[in-house]
Amino acid sequence: MDDKHVVIVGGGFAGLNAAKQLADRRGLTVTLIDRRNHHLFQPLLYQVAMAGLSPADIAAPIRSILSRHENVRVINSEVTRVDAENNQLQTTDEDIDYDYLLLACGAMHSYFGHDEWEEHAPGLKSIEQATEIRRRVLSAFERAEVTHDADDRRRLLTFVVVGGGPTGVELAGAIGEMSRFTLARDFRNIDAKLARIILIEAGPRILPMFAQKLSARATRDLESLGVQVWTDSSVTEINADGVDVSGETIRSATVLWAAGVKASALGTDSGFDCDRAGRIHVGSDLSVPLHSNVFVAGDQCAFVDPETERQLPGIAPVATQQGRFIAAAIVADRQQQPRGEFRYRDKGQMATIGRSRAITEVGKFRLTGLFAWLVWLVVHIYFLTGFRNRLFVVLSWAWSFFTFRRGARLIVSKNWRSYSDPKSS
Amino acid sequence: MDDKHVVIVGGGFAGLNAAKQLADRRGLTVTLIDRRNHHLFQPLLYQVAMAGLSPADIAAPIRSILSRHENVRVINSEVTRVDAENNQLQTTDEDIDYDYLLLACGAMHSYFGHDEWEEHAPGLKSIEQATEIRRRVLSAFERAEVTHDADDRRRLLTFVVVGGGPTGVELAGAIGEMSRFTLARDFRNIDAKLARIILIEAGPRILPMFAQKLSARATRDLESLGVQVWTDSSVTEINADGVDVSGETIRSATVLWAAGVKASALGTDSGFDCDRAGRIHVGSDLSVPLHSNVFVAGDQCAFVDPETERQLPGIAPVATQQGRFIAAAIVADRQQQPRGEFRYRDKGQMATIGRSRAITEVGKFRLTGLFAWLVWLVVHIYFLTGFRNRLFVVLSWAWSFFTFRRGARLIVSKNWRSYSDPKSS
Repeated sequence: MDDKHVVIVGGGFAGLNAAKQLADRRGLTVTLIDRRNHHLFQPLLYQVAMAGLSPADIAAPIRSILSRHENVRVINSEVTRVDAENNQLQTTDEDIDYDYLLLACGAMHSYFGHDEWEEHAPGLKSIEQATEIRRRVLSAFERAEVTHDADDRRRLLTFVVVGGGPTGVELAGAIGEMSRFTLARDFRNIDAKLARIILIEAGPRILPMFAQKLSARATRDLESLGVQVWTDSSVTEINADGVDVSGETIRSATVLWAAGVKASALGTDSGFDCDRAGRIHVGSDLSVPLHSNVFVAGDQCAFVDPETERQLPGIAPVATQQGRFIAAAIVADRQQQPRGEFRYRDKGQMATIGRSRAITEVGKFRLTGLFAWLVWLVVHIYFLTGFRNRLFVVLSWAWSFFTFRRGARLIVSKNWRSYSDPKSS
Repeated sequence: MDDKHVVIVGGGFAGLNAAKQLADRRGLTVTLIDRRNHHLFQPLLYQVAMAGLSPADIAAPIRSILSRHENVRVINSEVTRVDAENNQLQTTDEDIDYDYLLLACGAMHSYFGHDEWEEHAPGLKSIEQATEIRRRVLSAFERAEVTHDADDRRRLLTFVVVGGGPTGVELAGAIGEMSRFTLARDFRNIDAKLARIILIEAGPRILPMFAQKLSARATRDLESLGVQVWTDSSVTEINADGVDVSGETIRSATVLWAAGVKASALGTDSGFDCDRAGRIHVGSDLSVPLHSNVFVAGDQCAFVDPETERQLPGIAPVATQQGRFIAAAIVADRQQQPRGEFRYRDKGQMATIGRSRAITEVGKFRLTGLFAWLVWLVVHIYFLTGFRNRLFVVLSWAWSFFTFRRGARLIVSKNWRSYSDPKSS
């Protein structure tokens, strides 16, 4: 048999896990394409935004992760279109033919038709966005320290997080904790403890994917860190002054977006059948109807769990399991075995609130408080890719936990040019 | 006596050391102003540019370093002008009166009248510039991997470093080492070992501040890492294609600038008597003629060593000693004691070449090779501010040393917006 060429688009959890499963298989060559050079451990990205970890602690070069597998090639390029009729895809550099294709490009933030909000309310999907959020949050405290205007100070010390899912809860909790414990002792003019943090959720409760009781506990934990939780509240406007919420205006210098997501535009641009969020519809084996050699996984995949009859959530375990299933399906094809049907094995879910609290739900088994947080810690360290990162993250956390300090409190500008000339900026 | 107000502009080695010496002194209040929120350990900045360390490993918030000293206030703002006649300075936020002033704003790169070169040849003074250099160097290898054009590949794998001082030598050595050891095994199409690295020096030898013999040894060490050293070579043009050097044109996608520096413009803008590089002339007690309450330290200070009759070099030990001397002079004033005269105690100098070689010179005592590198390592770890940073840097280095890997190989973009949409970039 000739070698079959498997092309994987995207080096997230789905793509990377598929590539690892296909590595060193006889009769297959694998090309992984990503326009970023690194795999990102998204579940800990909020820690970079909150100055607890450095970008390199949670990101590793894809090329380096896969370097010892001879049959895997990594290309740093951008895929612009898939031509499924001709088994070919276009990148900004060249056209590439494939025998099998895995689309795993992930998702980006959706502002529900208000793209102009993004400038005033960055989301949290990339290292760049995390360092931008870090810059905004830390700068707000610095500006509050120098201003002599009380109204301005109040605006600078008001932080609004839109979206009560796990990311929104983690961001709001971390700002609460940072202002209460880390920053409070460093400022002279402002009392960082008086920072107002408002978490806005359109639905009736935060963390709706968790049991009612856990979501109530998370609300109480947030409140103890000074976070106000506003449920049943819709955002109607975001601009440089702040946020309009259900008729009220909150003046705020720092608004963060953790609400909707939509899939990469590659699915709709290439003419695949997509849902409203741009996710590509797939069959029970995760392949695209009429193109059984094209698979989709992760946040880009519209897959309704036959058990719960709900779209699977956009989380790392789903992407990982889908990536591995697809790799196994390709191997099964080669051995002329049936592919089987994808089933998500739900290992539970968790969300963390501040420095030492979390909620964890595994089936009917529920945990809260410090013990849930310790479980969260162990699970996240275990899954973090690569020995070095794992070790460094543990040390960073241990250091922050015992000293209440944060190691990465850097305000880094967007402009690299001639910073040392006061006149030029 | 009334409290005297000491204002320090700049949180580098000079300003921070002066602030620490003045902290908790009765009868003094201290305000340190910096437009960055962090103190930067400049001697290791090239390691960030070369993906060996994360920014947070070598930078710490000034506010946090000084937080336990009640009489010290830190302001994140930008000084635009000094009015020495009225003992006042202007910032972008407010005007501030002082009794004593210490100017320690540091230096920036000088392109000798060719400011348009900066875009094509970034210098290395800030975290932003370091991550920009990291982005350019790593991206060049990634682009070389995908191109099908042999000329383009050669241009992408040609790296030019302008300036044969310690920073230029460290950058060139690190690129040589990274291409030979770290990257070589990760690429499929290109042989990273074939990268051409050219170090350009206008004078007759690199590292002219060292003894002739040591500079020859450094040249040999660089050559063993694949770096060509071009001495007596003048750069006449830098643009997107590459560099013109003494009549030849080198096509290169990555040019780095480590040649001239000039002082912050604050000195000339405020009407102080400055030398050609913008450094402010001071007397033997480091105060400005006619304004004995205004001091200057570090890279901004024009001070000719009475022993060597040469301007003191722009290195951390000079800035540290000057900052401490000035703090002592202010305390002496308060006690109506004489200030004394500043004398630089030369503790020697060192430069590192690649992973395990360095040159060290202390008076007539000279070291080379691995032993010099170990001395370099111990000295740099010892002086790195703060326990956490020190521990993390040691671990990063140990990890890189034994695995030949680099922990921070991230290509981070300048734009944080909507990265996940392939159409938007």
